[in-house]
Amino acid sequence: MGLIVQKYGGTSVADLERIRHVAKRVARTYADGHDVVVILSAMSGVTDSLIEMAHNASPDPDKRELDVLLATGEQTTSALLAMMLCQDGYPAQSLLGHQAEVVTDRVYGNARILEIGAGRLRELLAKRKIVVVAGFQGVDIKGNITTLGRGGSDTSAVAIAAALEASVCEIYTDVEGIYTTDPNICSKARKIKQITYDEMLNLASLGAKVLQIRSVGFAKKYNVPVHVRSSFSEEEGTMVVHEDSGMEMLVVSAVTCNKDEARITLKKVPDQPGVAANIFTPISDAGIVVDMIIQNTRASGETDLTFTVPKAEYETALQIEKKVAETIGASCVFGDENIAKVSVVGVGMKNHSGVASIMFNTLARENINISMISTSEIRISCVIEEKYAELAVRVLHTAFGLDSDAG
Amino acid sequence: MGLIVQKYGGTSVADLERIRHVAKRVARTYADGHDVVVILSAMSGVTDSLIEMAHNASPDPDKRELDVLLATGEQTTSALLAMMLCQDGYPAQSLLGHQAEVVTDRVYGNARILEIGAGRLRELLAKRKIVVVAGFQGVDIKGNITTLGRGGSDTSAVAIAAALEASVCEIYTDVEGIYTTDPNICSKARKIKQITYDEMLNLASLGAKVLQIRSVGFAKKYNVPVHVRSSFSEEEGTMVVHEDSGMEMLVVSAVTCNKDEARITLKKVPDQPGVAANIFTPISDAGIVVDMIIQNTRASGETDLTFTVPKAEYETALQIEKKVAETIGASCVFGDENIAKVSVVGVGMKNHSGVASIMFNTLARENINISMISTSEIRISCVIEEKYAELAVRVLHTAFGLDSDAG
Repeated sequence: MGLIVQKYGGTSVADLERIRHVAKRVARTYADGHDVVVILSAMSGVTDSLIEMAHNASPDPDKRELDVLLATGEQTTSALLAMMLCQDGYPAQSLLGHQAEVVTDRVYGNARILEIGAGRLRELLAKRKIVVVAGFQGVDIKGNITTLGRGGSDTSAVAIAAALEASVCEIYTDVEGIYTTDPNICSKARKIKQITYDEMLNLASLGAKVLQIRSVGFAKKYNVPVHVRSSFSEEEGTMVVHEDSGMEMLVVSAVTCNKDEARITLKKVPDQPGVAANIFTPISDAGIVVDMIIQNTRASGETDLTFTVPKAEYETALQIEKKVAETIGASCVFGDENIAKVSVVGVGMKNHSGVASIMFNTLARENINISMISTSEIRISCVIEEKYAELAVRVLHTAFGLDSDAG
Repeated sequence: MGLIVQKYGGTSVADLERIRHVAKRVARTYADGHDVVVILSAMSGVTDSLIEMAHNASPDPDKRELDVLLATGEQTTSALLAMMLCQDGYPAQSLLGHQAEVVTDRVYGNARILEIGAGRLRELLAKRKIVVVAGFQGVDIKGNITTLGRGGSDTSAVAIAAALEASVCEIYTDVEGIYTTDPNICSKARKIKQITYDEMLNLASLGAKVLQIRSVGFAKKYNVPVHVRSSFSEEEGTMVVHEDSGMEMLVVSAVTCNKDEARITLKKVPDQPGVAANIFTPISDAGIVVDMIIQNTRASGETDLTFTVPKAEYETALQIEKKVAETIGASCVFGDENIAKVSVVGVGMKNHSGVASIMFNTLARENINISMISTSEIRISCVIEEKYAELAVRVLHTAFGLDSDAG
């Protein structure tokens, strides 16, 4: 009979019918004897509508005021859920970000949580109240409303779970959990029972959009067990936990694929100090986020440099680099939008050699050429031609023994 | 160059185009050198939609949570207006009820303002900021969100104007000001330049829905000059002020009409202590608001008692009184839904006799029968047959010299 924090995402509270379904689920948990804190997102689509409204009001909406506007989305769902619970005879009460004392820095639109002053939360829980907290929002020390960025409700939930030392933080979403790969690409994808924070961090940044990456970092830091599961079924989902000797240690836990990036190469860049800065400063000034960077050494004081950027920024980045190339004396700039990044992730990789060679050989057997490679301690990523993405995912999934029996 | 508080109602902020119009008006006032605090309502219709949503969520929505939901309406318009002002280069900042320290009691849905902690407001004004305050909402001492009831933004505006000792509180609405009577009924209706708080209090409660009645009481108590005017024109509206010897002292300032009431009469009620309590306690227990009450003395220890209730509650009230009549031994109960209350209002009345006789004679000349009469120090009201309501308004308007030259 511990404290359970439950977070429901936008699709789980998309309309009154679904919120009613959430109310039943919360009530059941409470009736089982648990203390319950619920964190809600806005109804799916609402945040986007509010952003659109803001842009219709002002081409470049003031960031402080945008957060005031966006915060209404979670305020609405929280009040509605609390009403439904009260109607059914459960002692529910909503709290907004400032009432739950979710204190953040003042980076409007992408604020970081500094502290959860859990006094009021504890007081309500001590009275056996069900507390419904508006996710995604906080307050700076001056009392200004802030929001935590896309997917910020996950971070709200994990941070509140950490502050209250909850026994688990359940993240309810529209999928059954974390899969070994995208089931839409590979029919043999399997739901993962347990995954480590580090694996999840690598998956999240590679395009598995189930959990906001910052929430995973938070969960790791404060050791909050996270249970990712579906609000539409009773099935157990995926537990995200610390690495544990008792865990089933797969060498590779998952295969992911990201087709949202494009590649840009500068040829024959003079191999001198300061050149990389010349190349990336204007990109960063334009607000473009660079993902992979690879530099190959060539003979004779020249080098080739390749990096990837989001497809939406490809043309802008290409134009910027054409100017840069003239300045620094690179021979030419070219790029490719038709690429995909395929990655394998797994903590088991740390103690096993040979993962890279299995990956490269598997791709080679299908005549898939690798144009870029990057690695982290528990991840290997290859950039390949976009048209081979699905095939690569399927053959790697099989090669690393992830296929389900059912598939 | 004083401090001006401007309140814009729901029709003035009904959509982005109208909010943009408000932004221009606010900016102009600021550019003229004034300090400006703006109080906003929700977009017209939004509060009703939210109430409907709440009732779809729960047949009897928890009052605390309903206020959390309703507060989003003013939060939205305040953020949008502040954004537009910022976009145009004006230093605007929104404040929600709790940020503006609008402290109320805990009567959710109809809270009363206890105090305005104007510290933050003053601090922002000292920096020459335009402060946009979400109207209608406050916060109790425990930090729970409250709302002030229908038309509550008027009260927010007046209370903030009082706390800041503003030189004027401008109430922007969709009419040009207060009229001597409803221009839809009487083409000779004239806009009133100046009216006293007391006259306004009598008008507000009689169906002139321009200003929330509580805001007028507040304005009177703290001596806040209120300027009721249209957001759609540049015309001066109506000043609501303290009685002043310099004012043009009309005997009668306005004629109003209310067709929302119905009449119930109990015949031959025993004239004994406690009987009135027997009659009205069950009505009040049913949440029905009684307006006029008239008791005529009859011979032989019996009396007739007549009162009015909102038309919507007429049938309920009638059934209640039929039971009451049996208990107390009244001879019969009957009622009439087809009534109208016509009133004349004016501070001048206090020092002038003959207003009542002019009113009764004017109605008599048109063969309009008066079935009930009630008076206050500055008001005389007559209940007549509903079909004569418009005729009565027009002849009284002429009889008291209110007709415009143009009409």
